[in-house]
Amino acid sequence: MDFCGGGLVSLVSLRRCSSGERPRLEPKTGLQLTFEFRSRHEEAVASQQITDFFGKNVKRVLFVPYALHDRDAYTQTARVKFLSLGYEVDGIHEAADPVEAVRKAEAIFIGGGNTFRLLKNLYDNRVLLEIRRRVLEEGVPYMGSSAGTNVATVSISTTNDMPIVFPPSFAAIGLVPFNINPHYLDPDPTSRHMGETREQRISQYHEEVDTLVLALREGCMLLVEGDRATLLGSTHARLFSRGKSCVEFAPGSDLSFLLTAAH
Amino acid sequence: MDFCGGGLVSLVSLRRCSSGERPRLEPKTGLQLTFEFRSRHEEAVASQQITDFFGKNVKRVLFVPYALHDRDAYTQTARVKFLSLGYEVDGIHEAADPVEAVRKAEAIFIGGGNTFRLLKNLYDNRVLLEIRRRVLEEGVPYMGSSAGTNVATVSISTTNDMPIVFPPSFAAIGLVPFNINPHYLDPDPTSRHMGETREQRISQYHEEVDTLVLALREGCMLLVEGDRATLLGSTHARLFSRGKSCVEFAPGSDLSFLLTAAH
Repeated sequence: MDFCGGGLVSLVSLRRCSSGERPRLEPKTGLQLTFEFRSRHEEAVASQQITDFFGKNVKRVLFVPYALHDRDAYTQTARVKFLSLGYEVDGIHEAADPVEAVRKAEAIFIGGGNTFRLLKNLYDNRVLLEIRRRVLEEGVPYMGSSAGTNVATVSISTTNDMPIVFPPSFAAIGLVPFNINPHYLDPDPTSRHMGETREQRISQYHEEVDTLVLALREGCMLLVEGDRATLLGSTHARLFSRGKSCVEFAPGSDLSFLLTAAH
Repeated sequence: MDFCGGGLVSLVSLRRCSSGERPRLEPKTGLQLTFEFRSRHEEAVASQQITDFFGKNVKRVLFVPYALHDRDAYTQTARVKFLSLGYEVDGIHEAADPVEAVRKAEAIFIGGGNTFRLLKNLYDNRVLLEIRRRVLEEGVPYMGSSAGTNVATVSISTTNDMPIVFPPSFAAIGLVPFNINPHYLDPDPTSRHMGETREQRISQYHEEVDTLVLALREGCMLLVEGDRATLLGSTHARLFSRGKSCVEFAPGSDLSFLLTAAH
């Protein structure tokens, strides 16, 4: 499954409260899934997560292709994939009123690409706060890939992308109270590259703020459901905290503490 | 030589007109050097470039450590190195009035680190335009490392760094009419990393604007002197143009066309 067209695949899913229930505003009612996969097996697992997450009540998914330049092509790619899983797709860029499209959405999927372009488009189209409201207050399930992972967090300050356009802020949708670094790369001791390692870049971020950063290697997944956050997938994740050594978590680890304000 | 403290080394030098001459405002009076080196030999070559560039008329260098968190330590590192080459160093953050420090500077060196932090500090301290004026109109020699390479160009939109702080703009000092991607990495066909390659990221930039991007691999150097730009060092550079295939240039190549508005 390739929702990006450029080989970039990772997923984030989030539902802060069940849509059939009375809205619950506290952050303990979330589900977040981040998945990056490199094989047909991983793709199958991710597809299963998508259908498990959206379930049978969702019939149509609002797809947000803002992170890529060719929105039509991107939406078509997503449409084919989602149709194979039993979901219709509406491209948000096809709607006359994108805010209204968010208001009516049964489910939201934000695709990957360039995080700066994605966030700028979310602001320019004034849908950022409406997505936040629908997910946090009305339980609309949210999924995304890669850049869609970054924008679901506190800010895009731990994206790996180039700042190709200037958004009005780096503040993101804020569906969870921490940041994620997707596609996390361990330092390569054989490399002659002299730029900073990913770890050094995240460390520089923590020289500025103390927001936790969960670094997801390719193949690992974070599932947040209700007040529980669980690491899934096939690889370990690293949690970076300001002024502390980073901690490794194996698949199956309980990361629920990430959802509380005090950590 | 490590001006960053974190293993990050690359240099950019620029002098738009000789300070002893009547100021010449056109972009044909520049010198730019970008150097990234991985050995004592490369370091020695870079040191030679620094002394060749600053020459004997410069006695004191204004060092700008804004890209790193610990400005004092960074300045001390630079001070030791520059003293070994015969230059005194003043840290811009040590000055009561940083703009006045730029006004009085015999030479300017901007160190590497995080490009967003660097640019934000240049704006916050209101020195960006004064550096531009001193270099473009008064021939003050400019050098920098890594992030100091990015801020010397049109914008920081082709930095590799994380957006850890929010600058008021991505527009940079604009001492040359193109962008640079330092620490350029070729795609690794054996990698299982699923994030975009550097080439893909630059391609996304060119979906937005048509500013040329010169990608400098570790070990290559660009020297711009007067109306001549020459690639030096030990490795090839790649030039990315919107809508065109990228072009490889070997050390010794004449890149003067980069300095003209029409390319």
